[in-house]
Amino acid sequence: MRIIVPFTDRDPKSRLTPVLSTTERREFALAMLCDVVDAVEGVGHEPELLVPEPLDFEGPATGDDAPGVGLDADAVERLESLPATVDDRPLTAAVNAALDDGSDRDPVQAVVMADLALATPTALRRLFAAGGDVAIAPGRGGGTNALVVRDPGFSVDYHGASYRDHRRIAAEADLPVAVVDSMRLATDVDEPSDLLEVLLHGDGRARRWLVDAGFEVGSGSDGRVGVRRR
Amino acid sequence: MRIIVPFTDRDPKSRLTPVLSTTERREFALAMLCDVVDAVEGVGHEPELLVPEPLDFEGPATGDDAPGVGLDADAVERLESLPATVDDRPLTAAVNAALDDGSDRDPVQAVVMADLALATPTALRRLFAAGGDVAIAPGRGGGTNALVVRDPGFSVDYHGASYRDHRRIAAEADLPVAVVDSMRLATDVDEPSDLLEVLLHGDGRARRWLVDAGFEVGSGSDGRVGVRRR
Repeated sequence: MRIIVPFTDRDPKSRLTPVLSTTERREFALAMLCDVVDAVEGVGHEPELLVPEPLDFEGPATGDDAPGVGLDADAVERLESLPATVDDRPLTAAVNAALDDGSDRDPVQAVVMADLALATPTALRRLFAAGGDVAIAPGRGGGTNALVVRDPGFSVDYHGASYRDHRRIAAEADLPVAVVDSMRLATDVDEPSDLLEVLLHGDGRARRWLVDAGFEVGSGSDGRVGVRRR
Repeated sequence: MRIIVPFTDRDPKSRLTPVLSTTERREFALAMLCDVVDAVEGVGHEPELLVPEPLDFEGPATGDDAPGVGLDADAVERLESLPATVDDRPLTAAVNAALDDGSDRDPVQAVVMADLALATPTALRRLFAAGGDVAIAPGRGGGTNALVVRDPGFSVDYHGASYRDHRRIAAEADLPVAVVDSMRLATDVDEPSDLLEVLLHGDGRARRWLVDAGFEVGSGSDGRVGVRRR
């Protein structure tokens, strides 16, 4: 199985801007990518990165106020060693091109988003073992966080409610769809409220990064739970 | 297995106030309860309701502006026929009393929240089949949406980040814990944004209620997905 992990470090995780600086967002995004790579490797596959430009691990000079908490050298080395396809088109076009390009080499391909900080080998194994010519792990909010494609007649469309669109595209091509019911795969980390899920359920680099950056679980007097930063 | 479903129709789903009237919130909450009852019965169990006062299906006179879209008579009749325990204490105390009261009669008890509009027999079966003296289906935001208790040494504490607290309580009592990774069971419906999940992934009365009430999936020009009401 060929596993494509799209990733960009062009202004990554912009919806976390209220709580993280530019440098921090970039580091946190890379930490999540490492977690996804770990999970994929835990199932016994080597992921391929799909990036709009070669990753620059030195990091751009941002002139940013907050320096970040740093990325460990092992993580950087590991990411640098992964095969990568560079395609600067928007996500949908780049993924479809990668799928088209690979379908001769491997009849089973998967696309796993890079911000699934809760992904585990167990959760991915459930997705990879699901039947269907297309297997989908829906994301919270209508997205498609991971999918397996076993038929070249399928193409992706990540704009809007992609979960619904992917079901429609599969139905139009008469391709059976399996849906995987996983909170871990449904949790893409976009918003500040998602950080709570990483703190509560993560056990990888992304969670450690948040802890190192001073984030912790906090409860208000009303019993509502959130994150706060020391 | 004894399955307790706590429910209140005292100002239910108050965080949906921005989008639903009082009467509507009450109807929607009952529709979700019906979906949970359906899912439990689909696994072959009869749920027991745990309520602060006997349910009044005529509904209180609210003087509310919006009349609601109505509840079907079959649903009401079915809920009225379920066994119910009345306990007007707060949730934690009422559930612990119910668990204490039932542990002699049935060594395996479960507590399933009434707002799991995406619950299916398949998802509940995974929870019920999970090992552990305590099996937890975490809710998004740190809660505990469903749990199975196989040891009377465990007690619940629903205040705050109950998922973490329940793990701690189990660890302190030396009880192994299983965690079920289910997006369906993780999705309790509290906030307007949760309605999108019901529209996208539900197939029961709660989804039908939302559609009848005019809710639909909408996409903004930025690709972000949400719900809108006609």
